[in-house]
Amino acid sequence: MVIGVGLIGGSVGMALRQAGWHVVGVDVDADRLAAAVEAGAIDAAGVLGECDLAVVATPVNAVAGAVRAALDAGAAVVTDVGSVKSPVAGEIDDPRFVPGHPMAGSEQDGISGASADMFSGATWVLCPNGVTDDAAFAEVREVVASFGAQVIVMPAERHDTLVAVVSHVPHLTAATLMKLAGGRAEEHRSLLRLAAGGFRDMTRIAAGHPAIWPDICAQNQEAITDVLDELIAELTRLRGVVADGAGDDLLHHLDEARRARRNLPTTVPVAEAMSEMRIPVLDRRGELAAIATLAADLDVNIYDLEIAHSAEGPRGVVVVLVESVRAERFQDELMARGYRPSIRPLA
Amino acid sequence: MVIGVGLIGGSVGMALRQAGWHVVGVDVDADRLAAAVEAGAIDAAGVLGECDLAVVATPVNAVAGAVRAALDAGAAVVTDVGSVKSPVAGEIDDPRFVPGHPMAGSEQDGISGASADMFSGATWVLCPNGVTDDAAFAEVREVVASFGAQVIVMPAERHDTLVAVVSHVPHLTAATLMKLAGGRAEEHRSLLRLAAGGFRDMTRIAAGHPAIWPDICAQNQEAITDVLDELIAELTRLRGVVADGAGDDLLHHLDEARRARRNLPTTVPVAEAMSEMRIPVLDRRGELAAIATLAADLDVNIYDLEIAHSAEGPRGVVVVLVESVRAERFQDELMARGYRPSIRPLA
Repeated sequence: MVIGVGLIGGSVGMALRQAGWHVVGVDVDADRLAAAVEAGAIDAAGVLGECDLAVVATPVNAVAGAVRAALDAGAAVVTDVGSVKSPVAGEIDDPRFVPGHPMAGSEQDGISGASADMFSGATWVLCPNGVTDDAAFAEVREVVASFGAQVIVMPAERHDTLVAVVSHVPHLTAATLMKLAGGRAEEHRSLLRLAAGGFRDMTRIAAGHPAIWPDICAQNQEAITDVLDELIAELTRLRGVVADGAGDDLLHHLDEARRARRNLPTTVPVAEAMSEMRIPVLDRRGELAAIATLAADLDVNIYDLEIAHSAEGPRGVVVVLVESVRAERFQDELMARGYRPSIRPLA
Repeated sequence: MVIGVGLIGGSVGMALRQAGWHVVGVDVDADRLAAAVEAGAIDAAGVLGECDLAVVATPVNAVAGAVRAALDAGAAVVTDVGSVKSPVAGEIDDPRFVPGHPMAGSEQDGISGASADMFSGATWVLCPNGVTDDAAFAEVREVVASFGAQVIVMPAERHDTLVAVVSHVPHLTAATLMKLAGGRAEEHRSLLRLAAGGFRDMTRIAAGHPAIWPDICAQNQEAITDVLDELIAELTRLRGVVADGAGDDLLHHLDEARRARRNLPTTVPVAEAMSEMRIPVLDRRGELAAIATLAADLDVNIYDLEIAHSAEGPRGVVVVLVESVRAERFQDELMARGYRPSIRPLA
């Protein structure tokens, strides 16, 4: 079941259908539902009720209410795709709920921009906490991995800080640069012809529909204002560097940025570079979330994950696929926390 | 002749050779010269001397000296490709010099990134002033138009303000956003995996080599600090809007940006939409520059331009190709300034 069939909800519906699910769509707007059926994003329009999986893709300020409603209606597992995670993760205290956020989107708006492969290669953050049921977490993980997304796990609070840094504040900044340029362009139309590729790239996200931003800024207010403060302080420092003609300081500033930019990961390693790790665990809530969060902390990307429960007794084994070069450090850190993992290279 | 055979100079050499010129390269670095010959960017290494056209493509703080040297060595026409125009335009007082700036480039560095089609579709700013010889301006205009560039004419001071808005400050901002993200990434490596397409687009220019920036910031210091002040003020205002939860103000801010972003021109009109204008002029210095600057002020792009000198007497006709929809307004404004232009649609 997909609740809210706009750009992201519609894409989730398409990806679920492509993976073989029967998808019922729910939306407050009947026209949008009809368009979603027409576009092949859902099999049929429906109402809240029992289902194996409910994906909430409403505007971010409606997420908590929709998650609660889906749980009350009897969904076995519920996840959401909201851009801010702490409020909903704090408000919903149910083992069946797995807070999530796919780092994907488009300047296009609504179902017309939806696509089954929107999440292919994208990062999809999941924020399980101590309450989240491991089986629910594992199921959501498997579903979004089947969309071609790379799953990363972290606490909701950290997610919100980090997306403020790499998404929310950059978006507000792009819009502000574009607004400044637009103001100058009223006087000097020729300005717009000077805007070369770099400026176009920088401001592309400012072409998106602004309607979602007031809610995002309200929900992630603290992290966004903190990062804006940092940005303003850095720009003020930089302004002083330019005014003083301090070329070395400027070089240092730009060089740090360049190094960081070149560190952005781009490729997925080949199978030959992967190792399987088997981590025996007590069959208790939160083990999976703890292991996946530790992996994210160590920059160990988990490319595949399953839980093998033992036939008898409260034990199981978490099996994860990770890059071989990072496996040993991950093993060390797991051992420091009392786990006893084994490593087997795939090749 | 190309003086300075790095990324831009090498590309100019390739584009000139493709247009049939014999290109001699000059550079302080013998290895770079050899690499430029090897890459086919110049026909031969040489020394300063008489030539039909010299293009100065040195680092921006060396431009004025190189232009002066080329003029002293007997170049018939000299132009440059520096990112800042007021200092060199103010320092060089010679009718043979046409200050210029192609809005093109690459994150790649040096001759290995050079390409004959780097300027195809790019905007190339020329900043002739009252001193510039019309024939020299017309020749440089024709040469860069032959590279596939769209020429736009404006005073050097305005160029510097506008590139601070659409190039220099956006670059510094991209680097600052990347630096903030890089700082967080040291603690939370997973941040880098959250950086989705929008952030990658915004920070791509921060991957470029920083070496050119201290000079650019020194030469365009005033405009850059002014625009940084504006940006900091706008971000501070926006921070207040987010802190106050003022959704309507935020929507307004983002909506203005969106409108401006969607106004960025992207297409070149077809021949059927063009008109030829013939503007009789007195054959005196600066007429061409005045007409081209007025066109830029009115957002009238000049797609082609020639001067027909009369066989007798000090008169001539400037022939320009412009979009038909803008021709009449351009005609009105020219008439208000004492010109008597005629319009003939091409189709």
